[in-house]
Formats: sequence, structure tokens, C-alpha cells
Amino acid sequence: MTGVVPPVCTPLTPGLDVDAASLERLVDHLVGAGVDGLFVLGSTSEVAFLPDAHRRTVLETVVKHVAGQVPVLAGAIDMTTLRVIEHARAAAELGCDGVVATAPFYTRTHPAEIEAHLRRVAAAVPVPVYAYDLPVSVHSKLDAAMLLRLADEGVLAGVKDSSGDEGGLRGLLVALRDAGTGGFSVLTGSELTVDSALAMGAHGVVPGLGNVDPDGYVRLYRLCREGRWDEARAEQERLLRLFDIVNAGGAARMGRGSSALGSFKAALHLRGVIDCPVTAPPQIQLDAAETEHVRRTLAAAGLL
Amino acid sequence: MTGVVPPVCTPLTPGLDVDAASLERLVDHLVGAGVDGLFVLGSTSEVAFLPDAHRRTVLETVVKHVAGQVPVLAGAIDMTTLRVIEHARAAAELGCDGVVATAPFYTRTHPAEIEAHLRRVAAAVPVPVYAYDLPVSVHSKLDAAMLLRLADEGVLAGVKDSSGDEGGLRGLLVALRDAGTGGFSVLTGSELTVDSALAMGAHGVVPGLGNVDPDGYVRLYRLCREGRWDEARAEQERLLRLFDIVNAGGAARMGRGSSALGSFKAALHLRGVIDCPVTAPPQIQLDAAETEHVRRTLAAAGLL
Amino acid sequence: MTGVVPPVCTPLTPGLDVDAASLERLVDHLVGAGVDGLFVLGSTSEVAFLPDAHRRTVLETVVKHVAGQVPVLAGAIDMTTLRVIEHARAAAELGCDGVVATAPFYTRTHPAEIEAHLRRVAAAVPVPVYAYDLPVSVHSKLDAAMLLRLADEGVLAGVKDSSGDEGGLRGLLVALRDAGTGGFSVLTGSELTVDSALAMGAHGVVPGLGNVDPDGYVRLYRLCREGRWDEARAEQERLLRLFDIVNAGGAARMGRGSSALGSFKAALHLRGVIDCPVTAPPQIQLDAAETEHVRRTLAAAGLL
Amino acid sequence: MTGVVPPVCTPLTPGLDVDAASLERLVDHLVGAGVDGLFVLGSTSEVAFLPDAHRRTVLETVVKHVAGQVPVLAGAIDMTTLRVIEHARAAAELGCDGVVATAPFYTRTHPAEIEAHLRRVAAAVPVPVYAYDLPVSVHSKLDAAMLLRLADEGVLAGVKDSSGDEGGLRGLLVALRDAGTGGFSVLTGSELTVDSALAMGAHGVVPGLGNVDPDGYVRLYRLCREGRWDEARAEQERLLRLFDIVNAGGAARMGRGSSALGSFKAALHLRGVIDCPVTAPPQIQLDAAETEHVRRTLAAAGLL
Repeated sequence: MTGVVPPVCTPLTPGLDVDAASLERLVDHLVGAGVDGLFVLGSTSEVAFLPDAHRRTVLETVVKHVAGQVPVLAGAIDMTTLRVIEHARAAAELGCDGVVATAPFYTRTHPAEIEAHLRRVAAAVPVPVYAYDLPVSVHSKLDAAMLLRLADEGVLAGVKDSSGDEGGLRGLLVALRDAGTGGFSVLTGSELTVDSALAMGAHGVVPGLGNVDPDGYVRLYRLCREGRWDEARAEQERLLRLFDIVNAGGAARMGRGSSALGSFKAALHLRGVIDCPVTAPPQIQLDAAETEHVRRTLAAAGLL
Repeated sequence: MTGVVPPVCTPLTPGLDVDAASLERLVDHLVGAGVDGLFVLGSTSEVAFLPDAHRRTVLETVVKHVAGQVPVLAGAIDMTTLRVIEHARAAAELGCDGVVATAPFYTRTHPAEIEAHLRRVAAAVPVPVYAYDLPVSVHSKLDAAMLLRLADEGVLAGVKDSSGDEGGLRGLLVALRDAGTGGFSVLTGSELTVDSALAMGAHGVVPGLGNVDPDGYVRLYRLCREGRWDEARAEQERLLRLFDIVNAGGAARMGRGSSALGSFKAALHLRGVIDCPVTAPPQIQLDAAETEHVRRTLAAAGLL
Repeated sequence: MTGVVPPVCTPLTPGLDVDAASLERLVDHLVGAGVDGLFVLGSTSEVAFLPDAHRRTVLETVVKHVAGQVPVLAGAIDMTTLRVIEHARAAAELGCDGVVATAPFYTRTHPAEIEAHLRRVAAAVPVPVYAYDLPVSVHSKLDAAMLLRLADEGVLAGVKDSSGDEGGLRGLLVALRDAGTGGFSVLTGSELTVDSALAMGAHGVVPGLGNVDPDGYVRLYRLCREGRWDEARAEQERLLRLFDIVNAGGAARMGRGSSALGSFKAALHLRGVIDCPVTAPPQIQLDAAETEHVRRTLAAAGLL
Repeated sequence: MTGVVPPVCTPLTPGLDVDAASLERLVDHLVGAGVDGLFVLGSTSEVAFLPDAHRRTVLETVVKHVAGQVPVLAGAIDMTTLRVIEHARAAAELGCDGVVATAPFYTRTHPAEIEAHLRRVAAAVPVPVYAYDLPVSVHSKLDAAMLLRLADEGVLAGVKDSSGDEGGLRGLLVALRDAGTGGFSVLTGSELTVDSALAMGAHGVVPGLGNVDPDGYVRLYRLCREGRWDEARAEQERLLRLFDIVNAGGAARMGRGSSALGSFKAALHLRGVIDCPVTAPPQIQLDAAETEHVRRTLAAAGLL
């Protein structure tokens, strides 16, 4: 798995069902821009907010609509092993090309338990398993030595690193190279330092902002692969300015998640990709002024 | 809801199915000791580890076996609103007398979102809803002013306070009294300070250790209600010494959750209540020496 | 060390010098109410905000003015061992009866380092040393087994527990009793659960709010010692309502520390004990409306 | 302030005094390698462990020995404003070219208080003030909007960013450029991503590991400035492998700080720069096997 693999937003209807038609348009918007894969049911997909039936609809809709044009990874996001395995098996049965699992959460966990968890999940499904390093959500950081071990043994196919620890990311990349461990994909979720991560040797990026401007991330990835670092930097800085949409919702009024996910959906709505910008409860919705911030930022970026 | 309401452990078979026969014996063990209610599918029940089918089996088994002798509360534990509502409705349909819901987790949440979440859950089910204040798992603390508001409006029927913030608990109790808000049940999950909490005006206790020694907690509750504080204190201190079983598992080898839940199940197994002490993956299992620590502690408490 | 040992506020002049005359009046206000000791240079004393010369003035002023009527403990609050020892020696030389030290902070610490730190501090001064368990400031919790070890060896004379972990407090008290370790003083800093802590066996209380209403805490302590628990509870609840002054400053405008320390000083000023309610920078000062909240709460408590 | 500005370790004697002769040799080692400035009394200097007299000796020794060859910045590390101002004034009087201050710590702080703190410190000293963003020690992150404001107003001369938030670092750099704010120095403390930070526009680096291998960091900086990114990357990766010395001390035995600072000093001792590798109490000392890990890593890097 390499390249640009956006975590696909989940468009909802005003009644909070999955809006399959909008989701298909979003898939076309992304695949048409040349992304290398899709990651459904990740944090940006509001997976934490979606009942199992919604998750299933997302998987069915995307797998069918993509029809093999690019690989589809699916998040199997739940608290602990047996629950994660159920999601992972469902995703595999529905035709996903790989599943993505975090460390356990809600429960107080231990490194030995995290490793046992990932090993069990990997053993339970017939598709590749990627670890998802997301301390902001699960309140533990994946241990680099464990990742190296599971990479070396072939238990994991890769890691999506959303830890924000770029030094740690680099340490992992160098250690993998020094150990001669091939076939292990390191994808960064840090959408503002993609050029840096690719320069360090990361294999790809999973940018939430890629929903809004997939062309930008595809361009950025290609510039990096061609070693055109100055142009890559300029493109990354353009995307960084666009990323300001996530600050639309005031911190006094809502959580950062509501603001970020709301702004992605507002942007997709303003760009005509999805029909309705609603996010799932209990997220607070952007109001008119906040949506206007998104609109102005999109306009400044030439995306309207 | 008042009195002793133990969070019921979920016995598993070696193959990790729900062991319904053991669960029924555990229910008898608790109800026979005179507890005032049962709380199934809470943290002590390993709810975070149980797939939905397991949860359903637990609910069906317990509701049927209790047969109305005492009320049964059910945890509706999941990340956010729509998922929690599904669990809550299932519990209500299966005959539970109330459901218990935490603040959202995994997602970064905001006080306004927590309140919206609890309001939506309460509006979606026909049974009383209790808030579950559990910062160690969900990484946010329920705001006292919000609880007072939801109590006053009749949105919530009570709160299970496992925050460990006894000053905050007391502030809530005094504020409820000062506001003349009746019919709101404050249950403490702090099993080592039950006499203190009841002296402050708490209505009951949800003690994990109550699985192991329900007689002790029933006795403690009655002593407090009769104002026999010195005897209550002695009983509480006896239970505190028994609580040392949760330290069976070494911190270098496993998480505190594995150790605590493992020790409760080991104790139930040693006392002959359940057939198998296994806990769900990825928890680390107690080894022989660790189980011996549990056995010795039980013996010292006269429980073997 | 037993009884009521208030952490003494440090009155400042508008120019941010120590206001020794006000400090002496505050000492009289406290000693006159019958407190059993004074704790200077603790968190409530704004020790973190006071330069060494201010700290010295506080020590000299209080030790001289108290003149042996009650023992005086002094905080030796700094980041690590050598710096703490300097403060501790200065306090001992200036005539304090004991010093109080936290775990190291600013640096990332380890339990073995915390123990080494406390042992070195205790070895370096000729007066008794008390450990100060204050995770909210130092971001680590003192280990109960370590406290038992240092108590048993006579390294520490006691602990001031401001961790808010009442279950842990009780565990320590029971373990000390079971081990037959005498002469180790456990003082709670949890000013809203004093009756509970004393019922559990704590030896005293260090209540910040005791600056404002020392008579209340002295009364509360005596009621507890006489086993008049219902009256004690009523007194504690009265003090809990008074404690609402700490919420004077809006959370949008200032930190909780600024609000709490500002409200104590505003109350002392309104009660005529100190000349100026200013707190040290960079704390935000209470404005007129916020001070009015303090005044109304004092009036409701009959303290004006 | 640009280029390589190592945070200078503080060599101690076995009796825990400042070893001025070793410190002078360390300064020569660094200046001789071509560094662009020195940062004394930072975290790597064990500032949290040094009494004021030690701090003064460090300042006097380094300022005199450097004799203007490169600028010397000094940490003014203490809990809150008045204490920080004392350190900052002392540093200015002793001839430092700038001082470095963190957000308040120990106390619970608020963004408005952090800003007030930095403004007061800057107003109190005649030399430039740099903010030190170090959440791992002070438990708050400096707000980017505040830094922009203080940069624009000329209150601060720069920031040392040890937050590890590379996306945030980039956001700050782009915002400074977009606002046309010149003369504000952004130095990264992330020693494993220096090429990335310089590519983003950072002005320099403050690498703890630069004590051990200043030549490497000087080379890395020059390669980046010349746009020779592939060579820079190889040099950075070499330094990353060398950085493994910080893992010398086992996590079961000591804190990460003890291990990292101990390994820097052990390396300086093994390289013949300083006489004694001891770190200040209560840090745990590296044992023989742990020191051997440092030696082997140095040898592999060709530094012995």
C-alpha cells in the first residue's frame, strides 16, 4: 500500500442514514483525482459514530462502486479483540483489501495486551491487517519495537501513524530499513508534513483533508516521488493554509473533532460533492458563520 | 435505585462463550446475599470485551433468571450516540429496568456534546437512563452542573459515580438536596469508601468486589443505614483488605484491568461460583502464583 | 502533627512584596481560632509564585509571630533534590518545625527517583520531613508501598495527601495500622471530605478554605474527634457551600488556581484580615463581579 | 539566532559541584565544531536539578570562556513569573545574549496567564526573550496565535519548539511568513527531524545530542542550507542511530530523563570531554552494562 489513501468521509442524510449516492460521488471525486487507495471507516469517516448497519452500508457501497479500481482498506474500530475481529471479518467478507485496527481502548491496557490484540486480529482474518497508531483516541502509543517485531514476522502489513510523533516515525522507518524488513507499509496520517514523511521514507499518506482537495495531495505525492522538494513544499504549504477550515467551529462551542469533521463535510457540500453536510450526533453542527469561514477558505484556495 | 447493586461479572467458557450456567449461579450468589439490584454489562462485566451476541446472552440470561426479584440495570457502553442508543434499546426490549451510559469516548468530546449525547440517549429509550461517570475509561469527567440540570429536568434517573472524586460527589449530593431535586439516584462505584459515600447521602453502591463478597457489602450497607458507623467502618476495612486481590497480577506483566477482573473471576472460581476464571482477550490471564495470592487473601478473609 | 493545620495564604502588597503586617493578622486569625499548626509556603500560600526572598520573609514573619504557640510546617517546593534541600535547610534554620516536599516535577520522574529524592531530603535536614502528594501539580502520585516503607523506617514523619484519592488514603491508613507503624501523620488536603477522612483514621487536615473560616474547620475537627458525626456532617456541608467561592473566576477568563487563590484572598480582604487581595503574577485578578460572588457567598455563610 | 545551538550539558564533580574545567572543555568541543550559539541552563543542562549557585557558576564559566565567539542563551527555568524574572535578570547581568522561558508550571495555568507571564518576563530584562515550548515538562502547549502576536509586537525574539508537534511548527512558520513578521527565530528541539524542520523554514536547531556529536549537527545544518537534501537525510539518519544511546537505561530501573541525560554525559566522558559522567540527584546513574551500550553505540558511529 503506497501513495495517497484518503480516509473517506461518510455522507449522511438529514435523517442520519448513510447517503449512498453522495458517498459514490465522493468516491468518484477521490478516485478521479488519482488517489492510490481508499480508507473507509476510519476516524475521519466518523466510524466512532456509525452503528454497525451504517458501517456495512459504507463497505458495500464503496467496495461495489470502486470495483477494484484501487484497493480499499476498512477500519475495524472497536474497544477490544473479539469486537474488533467481528468488524474485521465483516469487512473482509464484504470485499475489503485490508483492515485497520487500533490498540484497545476504554479499558486500561498494557503493551503485552496490545501486542496480543494485534496478533489475534491478524490471525482471525484472511486479509492484511494494518495497525492504527492513534494515541489521541485510544490513549496509548504503539511501541516501535513491537511494530518491528510484527512487521518482521509478517503479522502486520503496515501501520497508519497518526501519532504526530515524526521522530518516532523516522526511527521506525530507519529501523525497518536496517533490519531489511520489506513489504511493510508505513502511512502517515499527519497531513501537514507529508513531504517530510515521504522524504524520510514513508510509503504513503492518509490525509483527512484529502477529501476536500484530493488533487492537491496527489500532486504533492508525485512531486515528492520525483524529488521536486521545493515544489512539494509549496504545495504542502498551500494545503496547510487550506487546513485552516478545521478551525471553523469555535472551541468554546464544540470539540475539535466536531469542528474538523464538520468543516470537511461543509467543504464537500460547498464543492458540490455531497448533498448534506450533517455530522452524526452528538457532534455540534457548524452554524452559518462557521460555514462561511469554510467557504472563504475554499475560495482563497481556488476550490470554489 | 438504592442499596447494593453489584456490577455482575460475565463468566466465560474456555472457548470464550458466555457461560450461562455460571452466570445464573453468580446471580443466585448475589441475589441470595440480599443485594438490591444488579448492574450487568458494566466495566466489571468486561462489557468492553464482549461482542453484541455475548451482550445479548448476558441480558437474556440475567433478566430471565432474576425474574423480577430485583431490578436489573444494563450498561449501554459504546463510543457515541447512535451506537449507544442501539445497545440501550436492545436492553430495554430484553426487559432491563434501566440503562447506564458514559460520555462519548474515542472521539474528542466537549461538554455540550456530552450533554447532547445523554439527552438523546434518554429520549430514545422507554426506561430510565443513568449516567456513568468513568474518567479512567472515557477521559472526561461529567460536569456537576450538567448532572443537576438533567436531574432537575428528569432526563436522567441517576448517576453511577466511578470518578473517584469524593469531594465532587458530595458537592453533587448537597446541590441536589439544596435544589430539592428528588428521585435522582446517586450510586458510588468507589468500593473502598462506601461508608463515607452513604454518610454523605449517596443512595447506593456499585461495588465490583461485591461479586466476591456480596454479603459483606449488604452488611456494610445495612450498618450505614442504621447509623452504626463504627461497625460499618470495620466492615469496610475488612473489605478493603480483601480488595488486595486486585493486585494479584504484576504491573510489569499486565494492565491493572487484567489483574482486577482476573482476580474477581479467580475468586469466584475458587469460591465455587463459576466454572472457569478466564477473562476475554486481549487480557493477560493470572498465572498460578498470582491465583495463589487471590486464594490466600480469600482464606484470610474467611471466604474459603 | 494532628488537627487543623491550614496552609497559610501569603498576603501581598499592591507592589507584590510580602505584606508582613497582614500576614501577622492572618496568623492571629488562624491561631486565635484554635488551629493546631500552620503550613506556610504550600500551594495555597502561592509558594510557586514567590521568589526566595519572599519565602524567607514569610518564614521569618510567621515563625517569629507564632512564637511557639503552634508548630509551623514549611513547604520546600522546588523541582528536584538539591534545590529542595536548600529550601528545606533554610526553613529549618529559620525555626520551622518540619518541612514538606513533593515528588520531583518538570523532569520526567520514576518511582525509584521519587524515593531517592525523599530519602535525600530527609537525610539533609534536622527537622521532620513530610511528603506532599499532589499529582495535580507534579503529575505523579506517591506510591503507597513507598510511603509505608519510609514511614516504617522513620524517614518520613507523615504525608499531606492532596491527591483526592480517598480510597488510596484509606488503604494507606489501614496498612499503617496493620503494620503497627506509629508516629506517622496522615493529613488530608481534601477540604470537602474532612469528616470522612477523620473517620477513616486520618490525623488531621490542611484546608485551604481554613484561611477563610478557621473556626469552621476547628469546630468540624472537634465534632469528629467527639464522634458527633451528624453534627460534623452538617458543619462540613456548610463549609462545602462556602467553598463555592473558588468558582468566582470564570473558567473562560482564568485558570482554576487563579480563581481559588484569588477567592481566598478576596474573602480574607472582605473579612478585614488582610489589606490587599492581590495574587502574584501571572495569575489573573478577580474583577468586581467575581469579588461580589465571594462577598455574597461569605454573607450567606454568616461570615460578614 | 540561527544555526546549531546545542543545549550545553552541565558537567558535575563526584561531589555534585559544577566541574568548571570540564564545562570549559565542553564549550571548546562545541565551539570548535562550529556551532552557532550555546544554550545553557536548558533541560539538557539539568537546569531543573541545579541550585541557583550552580546556575550562576555555569553562566559565569560559559560566558567568560566563550568570550563572545558565539551568542549564549540562558534558560530562566522556574515555576512562575517573579521567580523566572530573577533568573532572567541574573543571566542578563552575567552577560548572556538572551534568555529562554517556559510557560508556568506546577500551578494550573490558563492561556491568558501564559501570555501575561511571557510579556512580564520580556518587559523585565534588557535582553531578547525566547519562549520555550516544552509540554512534556510544563504540561501545557504554547498557543500559536499567541506566539504570532508576541512575535509581531516584538515581545519575543523567538521560540524553541520542543513540543514535537511538527505540523504545528510548520503552521507557525507559514503564518509568520504570511504575516511578514521578520526577526523572529524558530528553533526546533526535535533532534531527529532537523532536515525536515529546516526545509519547512526553521531557523535553527537546539539538539541535546549535539553535545555528543556537534560536528554531525553542524554538517547536517550546512547540508540543509545548501539544499543538499539527500546528503542531509543520510547525516540525520546517522545521528538518529546514534540517538539510541538515550535508551541505555532500562525503563524498569529509571526514568527516561535519567537515561537520556546519563547517556549524553557517559558519551562525553567516554569521548574524553568531561571528567565525570555523574548526573544530579535524584536521577539514577547508568550502570556498567548501560554505559557499555553507550560505548558500543559511539564506536559504531565512529566517535571513539
